[in-house]
Amino acid sequence: MYRHRSSLGDLLHHIHVSGPLSRAALAERMGVNRSTILGWTAELVAAGLVREEHPAGTTRAGRPSLVVVPESERVWVLAFDVAVDRLVAARVGLGGRILDRREAARPRAGVDLDTVVRKLAALGRELIVPGSLCAGVGASYCGMIRPGDGMVRYGPEMGWVDQAFGAELSRALGIGLPVAVGNEAHLGALAEFQRGAGAGSSDLIYLHGDVGVGGGILVGGKLLGGEGGYASEVGHMLVNPVDGRPCLCGSRGCLEAETGECALLDAAGRERGEFGREAVRAVVRDAVAGERVAAAAVAEIGDWLGIGVANLINLFNPGVVIFGGTLRDVYAAAEPQVTARIAQHAMPVSRERARLSVSALADDATLIGAADLGFAALMSDPLEVRAAGLTAALAPAGHAPAGHAPAGPAAQP
Amino acid sequence: MYRHRSSLGDLLHHIHVSGPLSRAALAERMGVNRSTILGWTAELVAAGLVREEHPAGTTRAGRPSLVVVPESERVWVLAFDVAVDRLVAARVGLGGRILDRREAARPRAGVDLDTVVRKLAALGRELIVPGSLCAGVGASYCGMIRPGDGMVRYGPEMGWVDQAFGAELSRALGIGLPVAVGNEAHLGALAEFQRGAGAGSSDLIYLHGDVGVGGGILVGGKLLGGEGGYASEVGHMLVNPVDGRPCLCGSRGCLEAETGECALLDAAGRERGEFGREAVRAVVRDAVAGERVAAAAVAEIGDWLGIGVANLINLFNPGVVIFGGTLRDVYAAAEPQVTARIAQHAMPVSRERARLSVSALADDATLIGAADLGFAALMSDPLEVRAAGLTAALAPAGHAPAGHAPAGPAAQP
Repeated sequence: MYRHRSSLGDLLHHIHVSGPLSRAALAERMGVNRSTILGWTAELVAAGLVREEHPAGTTRAGRPSLVVVPESERVWVLAFDVAVDRLVAARVGLGGRILDRREAARPRAGVDLDTVVRKLAALGRELIVPGSLCAGVGASYCGMIRPGDGMVRYGPEMGWVDQAFGAELSRALGIGLPVAVGNEAHLGALAEFQRGAGAGSSDLIYLHGDVGVGGGILVGGKLLGGEGGYASEVGHMLVNPVDGRPCLCGSRGCLEAETGECALLDAAGRERGEFGREAVRAVVRDAVAGERVAAAAVAEIGDWLGIGVANLINLFNPGVVIFGGTLRDVYAAAEPQVTARIAQHAMPVSRERARLSVSALADDATLIGAADLGFAALMSDPLEVRAAGLTAALAPAGHAPAGHAPAGPAAQP
Repeated sequence: MYRHRSSLGDLLHHIHVSGPLSRAALAERMGVNRSTILGWTAELVAAGLVREEHPAGTTRAGRPSLVVVPESERVWVLAFDVAVDRLVAARVGLGGRILDRREAARPRAGVDLDTVVRKLAALGRELIVPGSLCAGVGASYCGMIRPGDGMVRYGPEMGWVDQAFGAELSRALGIGLPVAVGNEAHLGALAEFQRGAGAGSSDLIYLHGDVGVGGGILVGGKLLGGEGGYASEVGHMLVNPVDGRPCLCGSRGCLEAETGECALLDAAGRERGEFGREAVRAVVRDAVAGERVAAAAVAEIGDWLGIGVANLINLFNPGVVIFGGTLRDVYAAAEPQVTARIAQHAMPVSRERARLSVSALADDATLIGAADLGFAALMSDPLEVRAAGLTAALAPAGHAPAGHAPAGPAAQP
């Protein structure tokens, strides 16, 4: 039974990641015959998770091959993104489509857990559609997250240490589902691997720029976790030990201190008080337009970024390095500096297969990653989650079915 | 049949790594019952790979539990180590014991492939004991090795680029066995994980000091390979971008340029012409004895080493960092600098579970790693290799059985 349900999950995962697929394509991908696919699909149809359709434009005679389509509108997760300058909540349908979203600006620092959780829960509850299936809840957070329970071990930018973010958000949402939490760059890496610029590259580095620089690293297709799940702290690699800029972590000369938002705005001579992705993008736009100070600032940041990337190439021999968040914009403008530093400092053998790319999912990479975290339980046992999740989504907002939460889907990357 | 042979290999691997074990212990480790172990052991006894003995000191009445013991004298591999200052060949018995060894000093630079291979083959052939079982051949090399064929892609210290080291050494040995080649630090990491300071830590970083600094990194118990197998080039992480020392790779300020042999000897004001592990150890001894210039040199190198280790802890969240080769001595003397830098630059959450250790296998870590590479085929199919390997070891030295080489055991980490 367990193995059968895991096969149903695999089939659903193919549809979730690749979109509508014919039974023939599914049979080939999964290495089973078409009648097996027929049976599995029938179960998923009966559970309301997929439907079968005639492919668009079928006019020929004969038996057209049916296409299996995800029930994106009826089966969804709530996804949250706690970013540096905003809070985002979205309803993301099976198949990875953002169906609806809410955003709120976020005060810069010193925000307590309760304030953030109450705001997110309020945004999230607006998105619930009773009668459809909420399969799970995932959240992306800009800090170090303990695997298993969504505890924020360290969120420097908000001043959080050991805050029970996952548990508190679950309680505040009150729909009887736990919240799976991941680090934003880890989730961005997984999302780009599944659906973005990293598809097919199982040794992948994703760099996420916001106020700092986060990293998500895949080794052989799996997220690099390390002993405790806190690996890939790329932003705190020391690159400038001699006269480095101060870093939020208490050290100086960290990669994020030299390439993050503050470094760029400072180098560009912007007013204190300007911040956020739009301020970064404004500097990059000015640089591309030829404004001298902005161009020098972008080049300086690109230089440090290139040193960091060269180090990562030497260490990981990756197939692809992906620039996400505001680094997407910075890299696009500072590519010459980045590639020059790589040529100078990365071993030729280590860099010979490493391509550089900007994030394909752009500002939604972390949100899509959070959604996939929410979908993880459904992919591992579709029928079980369908039973549990429907109950949850039918409950009126703010009223959790008593005692249900621990039995619901929970997953960590 | 395949699965059965792989079980035999697993049993043999337990004995190889842990030494003599009772049938009861084997049954528990492998999760099968004792009668299954009895049958498997009988097959390995019949193949001449293990024997059964009464445990030492058994005097009590009743049926003593027999102990399964590796046939270390009769079943062995040839292991080679191409290090910076020496060439080593050893006969290493099943169980990991070095039975016999030969060493030769090596001229410093500009040594061609043919010279190295001829010398190694001559050393190796002296170690062959006809009539016993040579199960494979492994070699450790101080450079970047292509997985699969033992091609040296880059050996900066010897000036090698794309040299067919594995194939040529196999040909020169002439015993009809291929030579599996690995990077010295990769092999050191695996050896310390199996038998040394890293036992039980599946997220492990091994740093190997000789003229440069090599790295071997295990992620979840597996060697970090990356896209092409060239990951873990720790020595070329740029740590000093401002006024870094020149590096053999052509860059400046690499970790190995700041912490390798030349940096230490130079900082200690030693004569040009002094080199090798003994020269490094002499400086460390002087430093420990309180000689001022040597102590300052060790502290300076320790400072840079600490920066490198802090970066690795942020990136990998490891369970253990192991200092091998000459870094074993350097770390022992520079521990205060290393730990101070880690405290300063590694995130508290990232370093909370990371212990620091010196290599337990000391100067033999890379050689033992090479031996395990040689044993890999035997561990995956003991009966097949027994048949092929015996033929090889019985052949007179210098005469390969025609056409045998491609069928023999071959393995890469």
